Order: sequence, then structure tokens, then C-alpha cells
Amino acid sequence: MSRILTIDEAANWFKMNDDYLIITHRRPDGDAAGSAGALAQGLREFGKNAFVFENPEITPRYLPYIENYIAPSDYSPANIVTVDTASHEMFPENIDAYKDSIVLCIDHHASNSYYASLTCLEPNRAACGELIYEILISLSGSISQETSKGLYTAIVSDTGCFSYSNTTAQTLRIASELIEFGAPHTELNKLLFRTKTQSRIKIEGMISAGLEFHFGGIVAISTITGKMKEDSGATEDDLDDIASIPSSIEGVLCGITLSELTSPLDCKASVRTVADINAADICAYFGGGGHLMAAGFSLDKPISEVKASLLEMLPKHLSI
Amino acid sequence: MSRILTIDEAANWFKMNDDYLIITHRRPDGDAAGSAGALAQGLREFGKNAFVFENPEITPRYLPYIENYIAPSDYSPANIVTVDTASHEMFPENIDAYKDSIVLCIDHHASNSYYASLTCLEPNRAACGELIYEILISLSGSISQETSKGLYTAIVSDTGCFSYSNTTAQTLRIASELIEFGAPHTELNKLLFRTKTQSRIKIEGMISAGLEFHFGGIVAISTITGKMKEDSGATEDDLDDIASIPSSIEGVLCGITLSELTSPLDCKASVRTVADINAADICAYFGGGGHLMAAGFSLDKPISEVKASLLEMLPKHLSI
Repeated sequence: MSRILTIDEAANWFKMNDDYLIITHRRPDGDAAGSAGALAQGLREFGKNAFVFENPEITPRYLPYIENYIAPSDYSPANIVTVDTASHEMFPENIDAYKDSIVLCIDHHASNSYYASLTCLEPNRAACGELIYEILISLSGSISQETSKGLYTAIVSDTGCFSYSNTTAQTLRIASELIEFGAPHTELNKLLFRTKTQSRIKIEGMISAGLEFHFGGIVAISTITGKMKEDSGATEDDLDDIASIPSSIEGVLCGITLSELTSPLDCKASVRTVADINAADICAYFGGGGHLMAAGFSLDKPISEVKASLLEMLPKHLSI
Repeated sequence: MSRILTIDEAANWFKMNDDYLIITHRRPDGDAAGSAGALAQGLREFGKNAFVFENPEITPRYLPYIENYIAPSDYSPANIVTVDTASHEMFPENIDAYKDSIVLCIDHHASNSYYASLTCLEPNRAACGELIYEILISLSGSISQETSKGLYTAIVSDTGCFSYSNTTAQTLRIASELIEFGAPHTELNKLLFRTKTQSRIKIEGMISAGLEFHFGGIVAISTITGKMKEDSGATEDDLDDIASIPSSIEGVLCGITLSELTSPLDCKASVRTVADINAADICAYFGGGGHLMAAGFSLDKPISEVKASLLEMLPKHLSI
């Protein structure tokens, strides 16, 4: 059984202990990397030893000066802490040694499996960074500009620059306070939201050119072939959130993205809908699943066949 | 001479007077329309008569239920108020009758010409909507959900969903309070930021396909021909902020957008740069002007000639 800690109790636990190693999930996004870096930075400023567990997938985009935070190989942590990591399945591959000795987990996923001895969980938080902020404020009353950077990165990343539905009044209040603590918000917004790679802009152009509209424009289908990925040079990073393109078009109630995976016979589908069309139901028909408004499935079939099957079965889900 | 009012003084003036007509600038954006509608709504809830001056360019996108706010033809206002309107040049064409009798101007443009008898101006505000919010709070201590919608629209519109450099800690604090007053932020964010028209997505695709990179990728040039506008069906609205595309690409220090105006012999150039390249200087060479990081010019020449001249003169501005 995991014991549940409030924010103030978690802060107090950090105050009473020392020698922390902070672990975050595989393929760390802005919330994971920003939360881990900010927690290490804030604890150090409070006089504690704190390092981030080496994770080759953490990029300087989300945590500049990573090298300052990564634990040296001879570091003996007394307390293993995870941030933004709901369950063992989300752990990076190289942490087997610590997997069963996590002391504190700080998280905002409702699906948390309570794998740690102590858990500080608030599922109504838009980002784990909100919780780290509250803990550090409870600990020392303020944060440094350096710490504010990681926390701002965490919060804007997980909220799509405050545009997603998880953004709350609390999220914006914390972001406001982070700017007062010196977070370079304009610079971070530009880096995280207003910059695209050449490859990204190329593949977006190809996707736009190939968009298909069906059923009077309420269904939009975009297609991403292996050749498009190759010609544009787009990496996995460049394809982040690319499935939101068709559903972002005016009048579209159901946006579908069909991508070739490893071969032209291997297709991944992402379905995004508005609330009264059930994306999970559509995908379940093909053996997939997901949420009400965002779901997916994979099939060992060429895109053209998957598209034909979708167009045939969609009308009854669209109430047309 | 215009008398300067603080926020509390402006609120008090609204309390002491009645029968307001609210005017905003030509081609009203979200800040203009949202501020005007919210001020009318807030004043009505405080028991005052308040209408918005008819402006056929106000769209329901920024002010739903416009018809509830537009002044009937027999309305005799006692007090004309402008919002978000810096000078006579920004006035809509149909307000000549009122032009010289503006009692109060509420604005956030540093360039305000003090044309009204009373002026409430704070140029450090990201949006005029911030000022309207503070005035209504000073007036009655709270706002209704209906009023919060216009103010949230005003603030997110002028800040690019809190991503532009004009966003301050104060902006986010007000947005947080607006959500507490019930602003349907998720819905408004989707409407204003996460929805593109079919024409917009088409022309973005064409622009991406035609992007050119020069000088090792630090200059990106996008071209928008009359034919592209025709083929995509893009309107002026669809082209909003389209000049930010080339400068949003990783590694680009100078992004240039060349558009055909009324004929292929008539070219408009928009230049966006990072801080150490002076866009205004580049454009001044062609008889144009603007700001350090965003400037423009027009020439009666085909795009190809303008591009050739730019590529010739650019190196000395790029310090290469």
C-alpha cells in the first residue's frame, strides 16, 4: 500500500530527507523533463543533493544544461523519486535496479498505479509541473529563475500553451507567478510552440495537399506515407501531434490520419472527433481503442484498404 | 487636451453617467469586438444603457449575439466611448457624426493620439480587454459569465493564446480570474486557435511546398501568388498572420513573405527577423518601413524581380 501525501506533506518529506535521485518516464516530454530538472534545481537551492537519473531520451529542448543534473555513476541516492510517471509500464528501460524501491511518486495521471511507498497525486492538475511548483513553494516560499524555466516548460508543454481543455484557472495562476519569478516565457513559447523544423513544414505541406474531405466536409482524412516521411526527412519528433491536423479544420467533426508504419502493408490510424461522435467505438471496430474524442488502431493492410473500410463503416457513427 | 483617468476614475465615471455608445476600430479583431461587447454587457448588468455602434465588419466569431448589442437607429447616446482605438485613422468610416465628440477612450496603444476628452490608457497591457476587466471589477467587484466570454476572447486574441511577447504575469492572472468567472476557455481556444478553414489549410500547403531556403537556411522565402489565393479560395481572413510562416522555421533568422496584390506586377513583402537583423532597415531600402523585427514594403514589380533584388542586398544585413 502506498501512503498518500498532500503537497505540504511532500514538501516536509523533502525537508527531512536528502540525497535524491529523480526518475521520469520514457520518451520524456516537456512536463517530464521540465519537472525533473526543476525539482533537482529547487532541492539543490534548498541545500539538498539531487540528481536526475540518466535518460538518453531527455533532450536539451526540454531541459537545457542536462549535464548539470545527470547523476554521476558513483552517486548513491538515499531516496528515489519519480515525477509524471503513472506506472511501471512508463518507466525507462534502464531503471530495473530501482524499479521496486521508489520512495515517492509525484504525479497527475488519474491512472497512477500507486507503485511507490509514498504518492503525491492530484489528477486535476494540467501538468506534473504544477505539483512540483506547489511543493517547492511550500518548501521555501519562492523559487529561482532557473527553477521557473523548467516549471514553465512543463506547464506550457502539457497544455499546448494553455490552449487544451486541461488548462484551469489554477494553471494560469501558477504560470503568472512563474513569470513573476523570472521565467523567460516569450523565449520558451517561441522555442516550444512557434518554431517548426524544415522537415515538419515540408510534411505539413504534403499532408495539406493530400487532404480528402468526405460526407460534405464533416470527415477529413490525411495520409502519411513512408515516402512522404523519407522525402521530408521527418523524424518521430517532427510528427508530434500531426494527427491533430484534419480535426483542426473548420466544419470537420471527425479527423482521421492514416500513416504507413514500417511497410506499405502496415497502417496506423488516429481518429479525432468532436464529443458526439465516439472515436473509441470507431476504432474498436478495427480492434483498436482509446478515448471518446481521440482513439487509434493499427492494421496490416495498405492505407487504401483501411480508408475504404472506414468510409464504408463511418456513416452509422456520424448519424448520417 | 485630454484628461487622463486611472482605472478607478474611469469606473467611477461610468458609475456617475449613463446612455453609452461604444465604438471600436475598423476591421475589429478579437480584442476590439470582445472589449466592446464585454463593456456593453458589464455596464448593462450594472443597470446602465449601453450599446455597440453598428460596424458591419464585426463578426460573430469575436462577438456572438451581436444583434443584442447593436444600437437601434433611434438610440440617443449621451456618452460616446471608444475601446482599443488609438487614433482617428483607426475609426470605422461610418462614424463621422461622432468623431469629434468622443468622451472617453479606453486603450492600450502607446501611439494613442489623445483624441477623446478623457483617456484611460495603459500601454503595458497586452489587450484592451485587460483594462475593460479592471474597470468592470472596480465598478462592481465581479463580472458575469457572459461578460467573461468577451474579455477572454479579447485577451487570447491579442496574445496569440498567451504565446506572444506582450503576455505578462498580469495577463495570465486576469485570464485565470476570467476562467473562475466562468469563461468557456476550452471552447474559445478551439474556435480562435485550433480551427483552420479548408482554404487556410490549402494555402498553407501550397506555401510549404514552395518555400525556398537561402544562405545556408538562415533566410526563408515564401511566395503567395494570386493564383494560389484563387485556387485555395483564401480570403483576407484566411491569410491572417500567414507572414509568420517562414520565420517560424528552425534556424531561420530572416523570414520573407512575397505576395501578389491586385496584379502579378504588384508585390507586397513582409519581413520578419530575429533581433540582430534589422527588418526595418531591409525594408527601408525598398521604400518601406516598420519595426526592428517586423517590417514591410510594396513595389510595382513581379515577385521574381523583388526576390532577386532582396537576395542581392540581403548579405550585408545578415553580416555574412
